[in-house]
Amino acid sequence: MERVDIAIIGTGPAGVSAALTATNRNKSVLLLGSREMSEKVAKAHEIRNYPGIPMVKGSDLAAAFRDHLDRAGIAITEKRVGAVYAMGDYFALQIGEEMAEARAVILATGVVQANPLPGEKELLGRGVSYCATCDAPLYRGKTAAVIGYSPREEAEAAFLSEVCSEVSYFPMYKEETSLPEKVRVIREKATGIAQEDGRRIVQTEKGTYAADGVFVLREAVAPDTLVPGLEADGPHVRVNRKMETSLPGVFACGDLTGTPYQYIKAAGEGNVAAISAAAYIDTKK
Amino acid sequence: MERVDIAIIGTGPAGVSAALTATNRNKSVLLLGSREMSEKVAKAHEIRNYPGIPMVKGSDLAAAFRDHLDRAGIAITEKRVGAVYAMGDYFALQIGEEMAEARAVILATGVVQANPLPGEKELLGRGVSYCATCDAPLYRGKTAAVIGYSPREEAEAAFLSEVCSEVSYFPMYKEETSLPEKVRVIREKATGIAQEDGRRIVQTEKGTYAADGVFVLREAVAPDTLVPGLEADGPHVRVNRKMETSLPGVFACGDLTGTPYQYIKAAGEGNVAAISAAAYIDTKK
Repeated sequence: MERVDIAIIGTGPAGVSAALTATNRNKSVLLLGSREMSEKVAKAHEIRNYPGIPMVKGSDLAAAFRDHLDRAGIAITEKRVGAVYAMGDYFALQIGEEMAEARAVILATGVVQANPLPGEKELLGRGVSYCATCDAPLYRGKTAAVIGYSPREEAEAAFLSEVCSEVSYFPMYKEETSLPEKVRVIREKATGIAQEDGRRIVQTEKGTYAADGVFVLREAVAPDTLVPGLEADGPHVRVNRKMETSLPGVFACGDLTGTPYQYIKAAGEGNVAAISAAAYIDTKK
Repeated sequence: MERVDIAIIGTGPAGVSAALTATNRNKSVLLLGSREMSEKVAKAHEIRNYPGIPMVKGSDLAAAFRDHLDRAGIAITEKRVGAVYAMGDYFALQIGEEMAEARAVILATGVVQANPLPGEKELLGRGVSYCATCDAPLYRGKTAAVIGYSPREEAEAAFLSEVCSEVSYFPMYKEETSLPEKVRVIREKATGIAQEDGRRIVQTEKGTYAADGVFVLREAVAPDTLVPGLEADGPHVRVNRKMETSLPGVFACGDLTGTPYQYIKAAGEGNVAAISAAAYIDTKK
């Protein structure tokens, strides 16, 4: 099991900045996210106000971040965090089927753009899951429906199709899908999730589809779902100027902490979160 | 007289970031500072945690900022602000012997590293001045002492020597000075300012020197000296997460708002200050 000083969840500007500064402060980090960095950054047309990098395409800024991490010797662990539990002296992170331990946690997961679907929160943990890697074993030989908010989620659906008897995929985006034949793609926007006779029902604008398990896959989950006990303010985490959340040892930065949703603001907050997290760890020694 | 939407004081990462974002938001800006940018940035040996610009020399980061401003069509006005007055609907800025008006003000002046000299605050406005350009006329044909905290202040001493009968210069730094012959350089560290028989006395570690006027020239002045009525917290300005100060329409960002003194933190705050200032102006329309 991996044990680090600081677990950083998210590879947007906030998470990258936090990882660079934490490493500079001689703290070991576990940076969880995607080598493609933040989808929001990578897709930005042109960013004009990231000081020092004039008129940069989002994909180029994402590449610059990746290069910076590489040069600083910081690896990205491409796994999704299912949950973070405060254990007193440390935090336990559920990462796929594995666990990791960290002395402090920095949340940089971005803001949940979509509202939860009707029924989603109510059925979470009772047939509705946010993590294919974690919960696929529960649906071995059974049927699953996947509501995917970005093409990046297709890999999870493909993985489920190796385990489940049947997988339906509801893309919540316009791009072409690229999925194994076994996955049935249903081009209808999901509008809600219900329960009927012990099975889950995906409701769309055009019909209803039954499945044993429903996976709702987005880049970010609501912060208080990820970290039980965290004080949230709608889709945002409450923080002070030191980027401290309501839970000692848990810090947050970036879009997750509120508007403005700006790259340089997120990067600045990541720096502050890392310095606060390092100081928190040092006081515990 | 110049009239703008937002006056931004300071050309470190905070001020540069604020100027870029304010311009992006279609606000006119008056950016006051130095084309050499922040002295602290320009002199930094290597900056390792400004995401996207790996392992950059301070002078290169300063050049990147300058280039970014140039490309965005933002000019730097190389003048020192003497004071900022809240006039109700707008702010009046005393800039040298001129005035300018702004609908909102963003302070990004950095933190005052040096403590004020004993006697400095007490005699400010009574023989002690922070601004040669503003107050030189008061000492025409008289004697002046200049306590300069950086080689950049030498230009002010040179200017004073054109107006005053005698100028003594006390460099508070180690670099060689480059001053007109008429200026008497005294290589003794100033330790205080006093008053005696209607003249000012510069006290050094080795002796005392009388002058009619004493100019104390630093890159930054205490924020509540610059903006009367501003709520300060020691050398820092009190701000909330929106970078609002205690005065409506006045925003602050960067080192001025407190630790950590980090470039990316300052740049992030400049962005937030600009967006808050733009919103403030829009609500006043």
